[in-house]
This record gives sequence, C-alpha cells and structure tokens, in this order.
Amino acid sequence: MKAARLHAYHEPLALDERDEPRAVGPLDVVVRIGAAGLCRTDLHIQEGQWAEKSGVTLPYTLGHENAGWIHEVGSAVTNVEVGDTVIVHPFITCGLCRACRRGDDMHCATGSFPGIDRDGGFADFLLTSARSVIKLDPSLEPKDVAALADAGLTAIHAVKKARPVLDPGTRTVVIGAGGLGHIGIQCLAAMTPTEIVVLDPSEAALDIAREVGADHTVKVDGSHVDTVLQLTSGLGAEVILDFVGEQGAVEDGIAMLQDGGFYHVIGYGQNLDIPTIDIISREISFIGDLVGTYTDLQDLMTLTAQGKVHLRTSTYPLDAINDAIADLDEGRLHGRGILLPAGAG
Amino acid sequence: MKAARLHAYHEPLALDERDEPRAVGPLDVVVRIGAAGLCRTDLHIQEGQWAEKSGVTLPYTLGHENAGWIHEVGSAVTNVEVGDTVIVHPFITCGLCRACRRGDDMHCATGSFPGIDRDGGFADFLLTSARSVIKLDPSLEPKDVAALADAGLTAIHAVKKARPVLDPGTRTVVIGAGGLGHIGIQCLAAMTPTEIVVLDPSEAALDIAREVGADHTVKVDGSHVDTVLQLTSGLGAEVILDFVGEQGAVEDGIAMLQDGGFYHVIGYGQNLDIPTIDIISREISFIGDLVGTYTDLQDLMTLTAQGKVHLRTSTYPLDAINDAIADLDEGRLHGRGILLPAGAG
Amino acid sequence: MKAARLHAYHEPLALDERDEPRAVGPLDVVVRIGAAGLCRTDLHIQEGQWAEKSGVTLPYTLGHENAGWIHEVGSAVTNVEVGDTVIVHPFITCGLCRACRRGDDMHCATGSFPGIDRDGGFADFLLTSARSVIKLDPSLEPKDVAALADAGLTAIHAVKKARPVLDPGTRTVVIGAGGLGHIGIQCLAAMTPTEIVVLDPSEAALDIAREVGADHTVKVDGSHVDTVLQLTSGLGAEVILDFVGEQGAVEDGIAMLQDGGFYHVIGYGQNLDIPTIDIISREISFIGDLVGTYTDLQDLMTLTAQGKVHLRTSTYPLDAINDAIADLDEGRLHGRGILLPAGAG
Amino acid sequence: MKAARLHAYHEPLALDERDEPRAVGPLDVVVRIGAAGLCRTDLHIQEGQWAEKSGVTLPYTLGHENAGWIHEVGSAVTNVEVGDTVIVHPFITCGLCRACRRGDDMHCATGSFPGIDRDGGFADFLLTSARSVIKLDPSLEPKDVAALADAGLTAIHAVKKARPVLDPGTRTVVIGAGGLGHIGIQCLAAMTPTEIVVLDPSEAALDIAREVGADHTVKVDGSHVDTVLQLTSGLGAEVILDFVGEQGAVEDGIAMLQDGGFYHVIGYGQNLDIPTIDIISREISFIGDLVGTYTDLQDLMTLTAQGKVHLRTSTYPLDAINDAIADLDEGRLHGRGILLPAGAG
Repeated sequence: MKAARLHAYHEPLALDERDEPRAVGPLDVVVRIGAAGLCRTDLHIQEGQWAEKSGVTLPYTLGHENAGWIHEVGSAVTNVEVGDTVIVHPFITCGLCRACRRGDDMHCATGSFPGIDRDGGFADFLLTSARSVIKLDPSLEPKDVAALADAGLTAIHAVKKARPVLDPGTRTVVIGAGGLGHIGIQCLAAMTPTEIVVLDPSEAALDIAREVGADHTVKVDGSHVDTVLQLTSGLGAEVILDFVGEQGAVEDGIAMLQDGGFYHVIGYGQNLDIPTIDIISREISFIGDLVGTYTDLQDLMTLTAQGKVHLRTSTYPLDAINDAIADLDEGRLHGRGILLPAGAG
Repeated sequence: MKAARLHAYHEPLALDERDEPRAVGPLDVVVRIGAAGLCRTDLHIQEGQWAEKSGVTLPYTLGHENAGWIHEVGSAVTNVEVGDTVIVHPFITCGLCRACRRGDDMHCATGSFPGIDRDGGFADFLLTSARSVIKLDPSLEPKDVAALADAGLTAIHAVKKARPVLDPGTRTVVIGAGGLGHIGIQCLAAMTPTEIVVLDPSEAALDIAREVGADHTVKVDGSHVDTVLQLTSGLGAEVILDFVGEQGAVEDGIAMLQDGGFYHVIGYGQNLDIPTIDIISREISFIGDLVGTYTDLQDLMTLTAQGKVHLRTSTYPLDAINDAIADLDEGRLHGRGILLPAGAG
Repeated sequence: MKAARLHAYHEPLALDERDEPRAVGPLDVVVRIGAAGLCRTDLHIQEGQWAEKSGVTLPYTLGHENAGWIHEVGSAVTNVEVGDTVIVHPFITCGLCRACRRGDDMHCATGSFPGIDRDGGFADFLLTSARSVIKLDPSLEPKDVAALADAGLTAIHAVKKARPVLDPGTRTVVIGAGGLGHIGIQCLAAMTPTEIVVLDPSEAALDIAREVGADHTVKVDGSHVDTVLQLTSGLGAEVILDFVGEQGAVEDGIAMLQDGGFYHVIGYGQNLDIPTIDIISREISFIGDLVGTYTDLQDLMTLTAQGKVHLRTSTYPLDAINDAIADLDEGRLHGRGILLPAGAG
Repeated sequence: MKAARLHAYHEPLALDERDEPRAVGPLDVVVRIGAAGLCRTDLHIQEGQWAEKSGVTLPYTLGHENAGWIHEVGSAVTNVEVGDTVIVHPFITCGLCRACRRGDDMHCATGSFPGIDRDGGFADFLLTSARSVIKLDPSLEPKDVAALADAGLTAIHAVKKARPVLDPGTRTVVIGAGGLGHIGIQCLAAMTPTEIVVLDPSEAALDIAREVGADHTVKVDGSHVDTVLQLTSGLGAEVILDFVGEQGAVEDGIAMLQDGGFYHVIGYGQNLDIPTIDIISREISFIGDLVGTYTDLQDLMTLTAQGKVHLRTSTYPLDAINDAIADLDEGRLHGRGILLPAGAG
C-alpha cells in the first residue's frame, strides 16, 4: 500500500510502498482509510517539535484523524464487522487500567497514538483497535468527519467539561474560530443556552462563526478586551474557551474572565503566568483540556448525524500531501485539509 | 468601648475609646466580641499591602475573625436573639444579588469585609448583619472557634470543592500544616476517604499534622518531591491543596500533581508560571479558592461541635494586641493567636 | 382596589373592593398587577382540595402567577425601584434559613405562598417581598410572562435537574404538551442536545409541540408506549418528564423508561406503585420536582427575553374571572389564561 | 473438580465431579476459588424465584461472591498473572458497549452473571474474564473479602451515589444492619461526615452497628419512626439507605425522609406505593441501586486494605454447602457465610 512517511525532520513526506497491516491481536482492527485530516500538529511533528516527547523512530507514517471502512478484524472483535464505515478515535487504549475502567480512557496508562508515536493514517490502511472505532450513521461519509477525530473531539470535550456552569444568562468567550473553534461554537450552541462571544483576527473566520452559531463576534484588533467587557456588563464571561493559547491570548482571556469563572486552556504555545493572589482573590480556575474520550467522540458523531455540527473542509489526494502541508503552512488552506487515498470513496 | 485601631501604616495599633455601634438598619446586628483571631493578613494590612485593594480610610479597627454574643438586633432580624452565642462570617452580603441568591454569597456584588474595609472585631463590639451570624452549639465558646471564621472557613471551602474527586485510593498532598493547613487536614479526614500526605519544613508542624489526621508527613528538605512521588507510585497525587503559595511551593506542587489532577491555590505570594502545553498534555487544572460561604461556615461549626475539628490557639488580652502581633511576626506564636476583650467570658 | 376573592368553596369568586396593601416591613414590596395567570390549581382551590393543606381562612384573594410594576418598597429594598417592571416568584422566603442560604429557597423553613395561603394577585395590587421580584428585560411585558411565574418555573426547574444526564444521543419523553409541557419542551431544546419525544392525546397539543421543538410527537392512543419503544431501540428513554401524573401516565412512563434512567414526577393525581425489585434490578430513579427557585425564574426570564421560550396565552379582564375559570374547567381555554386588571397596560 | 450444582428447584445442591474450565477466549481467566460467599439470593435461586428472570438451564453451579488465585489466563490478558490473588467482580462485561465505555459497566448491554445465569464459584475453579478480576493487596486473603464481591459492592455503590449531598450536619438513616447494612455503615463513616442513624429489630445487629460506626441506633419496635424524627429535629433525614425493602420498611422510610431528601432503594420485596402529590409537594426522590461497578469494587478493596471496612464471616468447607444454606435459612448463620473449597488456603 501507499503510505506518506517522514524519513527526516524538516523534510517533505515520502510516498512509500509498504505492506498492508494485519489484524494479529484479538482486538486488532485494520481500517481501509477513506479520509485523513491534516492537522497543524503534523507540521509540528515535521519540524521535530514532538521528536523527544513521542520517542518515535523514523521513518513512520503520519496522520491521526482518520475514518474509513473496516477491512479486517481480530478474533475477539464484536463491535464492528468488515465493511462497516467507522471513525477512528486517535488513542489506542488498554481497556483494563483504572482510567479506562472509569470511562476516562484518554488517561489510559499504556495507550499509544497512531500518527504520533506509531504508524498513522496517511496511507491506504491503518492498524488500530476495536476499542478505537465507532460505526458511523449511514448519513455520514469518512471525508465529512475524519477531522472530527482529533480537532472536533478536543472541542466537544472542552464544551462538555464547561457545560455544568453554563446556565441561561451566562456568556462564553471562544478565542479562535479556526478548525477547533468553529466546532466548539457548534457544540456550545447545540448543548447549552450560553451566549456565545467569538474572537478572531480574521473577518472570514468571524463570518463562519456567525453562520455556525456565534451570538456576538469581536475582531481581535487591540480594543477587543474592552468590547467583551462591554458585552458582559463590565464583569467578563463566566467561561473562556481558549483555542489559541499563544501570542497574548492568555493575558487577554484572563482580563475577560469573570470572578469565579473558568478558563479552559485548549490551544497552547505561550505560558500561563499569573500572580497566585489574583487566582485566589478572584477565585478563578484554569482547566486543562486534552483530546476527548471514546464516548465524547460518539457524542460528536451523534451531533454530526443530527446536522448540528458540520465541518468545513478542503480535499486533496493523498499523493498531494506535501502540497496540502505547504498550503496549511502558508495560510492558503481554507477549512480543514482532508487527504483522500487513491481507492477512497 | 475599646477598639484597636490602625492610624498609620507601619505603626502599632492604638487602643482607642470609641462609641459602641448600634443596630440601625433592619438586618443590623451588634455582636459583643468574645474572641477575635489574629491573622497574618492583619500584619499585611499594617504593612500597607492591602491599602489600595481595600480602599479603606485610616484610622479603623482591624479584626476579621470574630465570635461573641448578640448584643442588639435590627427590626427585621429573625434568626438570632440578644444573648445568643455566635460566630461571625467575615463577609457582609446583600442577600439579593444573583450570587447571594444561588448560595454563592462570597461573590456578592456589593459585600463589605469588617476588619479589611470597615471596622472589625478587635474591639468590645462589632457591627455586622443578621446574614453574617451563626448560632453556636452550646458546647462551643467564642475563644475556641473565632479563628475558624476566616482561616478555617477557607480550608473547609477548599476541601469541599476538592471532595467530588476524592474517592478511596486517591492521595491528597497538603502543602503547609499551619493555621489553615491543620484545619484542612481535619476536614479531609472527616469528609473524605483520601490518603493525606502533609508537607512542611517544621517538625513541630508535622507532629501536629500526624495528631490531627495525616497518613504521611514529609519534611520539606529538598528531597520532598521525590518522597511524595515514591508515595504515589511515581504518578503524583490526584489533588494538591497548597496553603503556602510562595517560595517555590507552586513548582513543587506541580511536580507532585498527577496527570488529570487538580491543584488548589489557597496560599499566595508567588506566581503560577507554567507552559500551556503542560496544562493540556497533562490535562491538569488550577482551582482558585477564596474564603467559604455562609453554609460552609455552618458545616465547619458542625464538625467542630462533633469534635472532628479542633483549633489550636494561644490567647492574649485585647490590650496586648501589639505583643500578639509581634509574637506572630517573629515566630513566637504557637497555634492561632486569639484576642480577648476585657469583658469577654 | 378590586380583588377576586373566594368566600366559600364551590362558589364563584366575588369581585370585592379592598384596601390597597402597604409596604410596612423593610423588605416588603407592593406590586401593581399587570397580569395574573390562571392555573388549574385555582380550580382545585375552589373545589376545596387545598383547604386543609394550606390552612387558609376564607375569604381571600386567589392568583399565584403574577407580574406587574413596583408600586411601593420597604425601607431596606435595594434591588428594585418604584416603576420597575417585574415578575413575581410565587414563594415568599426568609433569606436566613439554611435552605435559603444555599440557594434552595423553595425549601425555605418559613415561606408563604400568595394566592394559596394568603392574598394573591387576582387584584389591582399584591403585597410580596423584595426577595420575590425579578426585574424584566425591557422587551418583556407582564401579560407575556405572568404565567411563567409558576407553570413555566416548574418546567424549567425539572429540565435543569434532568440536564446533567442529557448528553447527545439521549432521548427525553415529555408526557403532556399543555401549559407546563410546552414550556418544558422549549427549555429542553434551549438547554440540552437531547432528542425530544412528546406524548399527548390531543392533536392540537402535538401541533404546538412540533412548533416549539419536539423532534417526535406520539398521540396517546393505546399504542403509544410501543411507538416510543420503537423510537428508542427498544430500550426506552433515558429521561421521562411526566407533566401529567394521572390516568395511567405513570405506568406508561415506567414502561418507556430505560434501565438506569430517571423518571421526573411533575404532574400529579395518581399513585406511583411499583415493586421495589423492579426499581433495583432496573436501577431506575424517581425524582420529585417542585416549583423552581428564584434563580430558576431568572434563567427562565433570560430564555424568554432571548426569544427561546414563548408562552401561548388567552387574555380576560379581571372582571371576567369567573368566565375564565369556566372556560378552563370546560376545556374552552386555549393556551394559558391571563387576567388583566382594569388599569393594566 | 468439585462443584456444588443445582439439579432441580427446591432440592439441595449436589457436589458433582466436573471438568475444570479452561481459558479459551483471549480475555478469559480461570480463578482457583479461595472462598465463595453465600448470599440470600442463593436461597431465592434454589426456591426458583429467579428461574424465569435468569433463563438458566439446570443443572448449574451457584456462587456469585468469589475470590481466589489466577490459575490460567487467555492470550490477551495483561492485568493479572497466574498466581495473583484476586477478588471477582460478579458481572462479566463486554468492554465495548456504550455503558462499559463510560464506566457504567453494570449496565453492559451483553453481560453475564456467573452463579446466576452460568456456572459460578461454589467449585474448585471459576471461569471469568480479565475484566472481572481485581488484584488484592497482599494484606488481604480470599476468605476475608469474597462476600464483598456482591453484598459489599452493592453497599458501597449506594453510598457513593448518596455522597454528593452528605455534607456535615446531614443525617443518614440506614434501615437494616445485616450483611449489606454493616458494610454500608462502614462506607458512610469512611467516606462522608454524615451522622449515621441505624435501625434494626435485632439488638445484636445494633451492637455491631455501633461497633462499626453508627452514631445512633434505634430498635425497630413500633416507636422507631418517632424516635428518628426526634433525632432529626422533627424533619427526618436527608438520606435513607433502605437495605430491607420489605415488611413495611418503605412506609417507615418515607415517614423518616426529609422534604427534598433522597430515598435509596437497595433491599427489595414489597412495593413502593405513594401518591404522586406527596412526591412533588415534598420534592422527594427514590433512587434505585444495583450492584456496583468494577471501580466501585476497587474502591471497596482499598477501604478494606486500609482497615476501614471489615466483613464479619462464618466459614464452612464447600462440602458442607447444604448445611450452610440451612443455617442461613433458619437464622443460625452469624456474619456472612463463606464456603472454602478443599484445596483453598
């Protein structure tokens, strides 16, 4: 099969011919890839930023947002059959540790992450586990949902964690209306009565934000913090969902947060640096949000099948992966980039 | 009446003769002070650290941890009668704003704080509100509980917020076994099944920690982080209650926190400074904890009456307030300092 | 002033001339009535069903769903001013008991209920408390919201209690699409992603249900339980909101409830009668729902001002109260009946 | 191997010679039984009460409270090794359905229950799953914990569900201080600050209740409801844990429940029969409690290893199973009956 592999950091991916993976273990599943999302993390991997953290050995295949069809199953697989259309949860989990047993599978003690620390889905086939696949509603196709497997999953996870405090009359500030943010807005609108205020420097992104459910949009132009304070009676918002986490977003976000409020850290890059006396006297909290659980992804697929969440995409053939990466890197890629193997669809 | 007042920053308090306050408003309450706790915040006020934040005009009476007997009540007071023994919640709240109406009274939109921004309880009498007094169980005396009104209240509030995740098998690290910490340990032991690990540089403090319920004590000596990691299977604790918040406590605490865990910021002084990528990839959260609500103080009085919480104190006559302050400042004060007006008891 | 009073059970109300109430206590508030909702409970009061429970002495003024303008305030009132447009929470609460202090004011130890156990709002003026009034958004008028003060408040309270389990993919069965039910449907749609299945014997009610947000409507015709089971993969719904509670609704509801699910009892009339072995082996729960809190009513007013909740009404002059009661009793009243005093509007 | 099997309802068990089970499936585990608890449900099975519900085919081996040592493991088992000492969760779950994935494994869509609907642990060996075994702390032996696998697990599950409302100052009434109740009392004492009031008709049971943590004990003698109301300021308890569920316990329990309170149905036998108007006007809830999850059993093992929970037992050799059943049936069995196979220990 074809697989887009990284042979050396800072080099383009190579389209190599590889043996197809096989379902050897009892819970193994081989997925024929229908579509794979391109993520900014793929750029960071290529740049070597994850080299030490992941410990991966080059060469290997990238691609951690995958959907397709079940191609082969291990002996103990009961939840899917060959031919089923599936989305692939990005984490392979053991199912036996305490975290897995309480439904908190993203903290699995022995998990692995295809596309990050082992071969991923920029290929014709992907080896994963029965525990990582979710059958799709017949109305959904791999290319429409693949990028929800990581970007969307992180967004819904953050919204579900924020939800208990989001009563009517609350305001939620969404910082960043890009790949994750525009899914976060849709999840907020579908699951909560909160008033949604969206910040972004791009007018195009704010247009999309309004289309998908923002109640207010604010251009990041220097006066945006004041604008948000005016929209929130001078008090700030009860919840901040920060999908950016760099270039001053955190300082802005803290200034827009209401006393007693919750700041969700989702995007990353800069430091959170704040006097402890401010944390205490304002009684504010900072909540880290990782990618979501398996049941979070089920929930997201439900919202998508119900038409409440819709992902914006641009497609490329898998062979054009390096073009897609260049487009993403240079800001030419609108919506989420999706790679389609030759045989997909 | 006598009142210990601050006339100028960096000066000793003066024991002035003042008119007794009167219950003029319908919910006003005048408390004859039985005992008032001395808090490190009183030193910080004297040093001028709160001058700008509180906006108070000098001279005024300090003392924000008060208990005593009801002396006079306003026309609409129905919850206490003259002669009742009471502890005084430190915050005077309106009862009508959204925060008050949902039981979150410490975020009252228009509250005031006797001893911080208006006359406090280092005096024979204190003017407060019916909404701020709690009748004491007959077994409790003002001098035994006064310092629970703020220090203890902050500790139980943090423990109540941490409690939902404190299942059997979890570990909680308590940083600092002083005035707040030794109450926090007792609240943890009374309300949760968590294993309690206490850190302090003082052997005397660790002795107290063991007496009041610590399962493990660890001297802060440079190897303490490693010791805690060994006690927690190398993973760190699910919850950190940081009653110190300065001199490196935060960096230590982050290193002792389990992935997915909750860091409660209670003590203050230094900054929290951490890369957002660590917050996300470890999915850790930082929870600010202010003083507790009125019902938190009711809960603390219940635990105290049941013998589950016991405060260690040293008493001084109110006239000796400047000696007490000096003892606190210079480390000679063991347990919590309690001021007794001449007529108390 | 005019007041519609009950002089004897089973008799029509009399339109008596009465002295206007005055704001004597410090938190008293007199509201000039703009509109008052007519509730089936008013019929039950007239029939004597509440005589013993309320302990009220005849004659007295009915009307427990009130809205209007502030006419006079007591000396300690700070949250409203004369002239403000307000809705009136139906319960007068003390603000000082444990229940009030934790925001659970509907369990106030010493509350009273105008229109049930003291003079209500079928009159030109109503005496209530500063703690019971909520200022309305300028877009809202008394006649549009009065009936939300009790019927709507009960509906939103039930939805808020059910909300924590209502993830995407869940189904909620609403039994009864009448006065409470049609508000419940709108609250579910505004606050949760659950799929809403509505049951009613009336096609007209089901038409309204569809207009306000039902995903599925099922006519109560003998096969309705089977229809709901088919809609829910044979498993039943995660949550039942039973706004009927009589004539077999409870048996039907139990048959439509998923194992592990929650049955909310809101309407009443019949008994809940079920073997304890079924409660345990199915691990199902029955949740009683009373009228909501003050903050629940704030939330409902927010949703109404945002256009997410809209009440259907028919108006009558206060003088025609007995006609309105007859219309309600005999099924001629469509939407919620609203009484307008002569000077209203 | 030896196995105590039921060949016909209403007949004694037969001690048959059977082939040892083998770990054929990848997650299969064979446990050499160290001890098996005898439960009143075993009597009910013998009496045929579960014949229809379980659908089991006779003959088969009883015994659903099991502990022992790992004897053989399937190819994909990673959490235990041959020789490990384990307790056996009573339910075999799939790990792949939605319920399992969110940690709610007792609602597994395709689970089976050894000792109820397939061969159980009154034998030398038991076939179960890697998902059902928990390694024991070295301080614990199978005979000390076996009966916690079902009776104790149900008790801790109920306490964990009740815990969020059990603040200081609350009261919990435990109805029945027998096999489940005496574990429930210990779990309440270890995990909550609630005041524990225990009811039982037996003085011996109340003696045990006091030893293990009851704050008050009340003999069931006709005046017990009044006694509990006196202990609770006339209001009743915030929580009832009813481990009896028959012979009038439910009517008593409802009379002892505070308005706004939670009634946990754990024991069973009679009906819950109550007017819906009482459920609503008192806003009370009835919570069904099934056996606990896998992580609940981990928690219970933690409390047991910490010495906070201790089970009282009487042991019998497996050959004497019918004597043990007779002793249980005729009230001669004190503590929980434990069967020991010939080779155990």
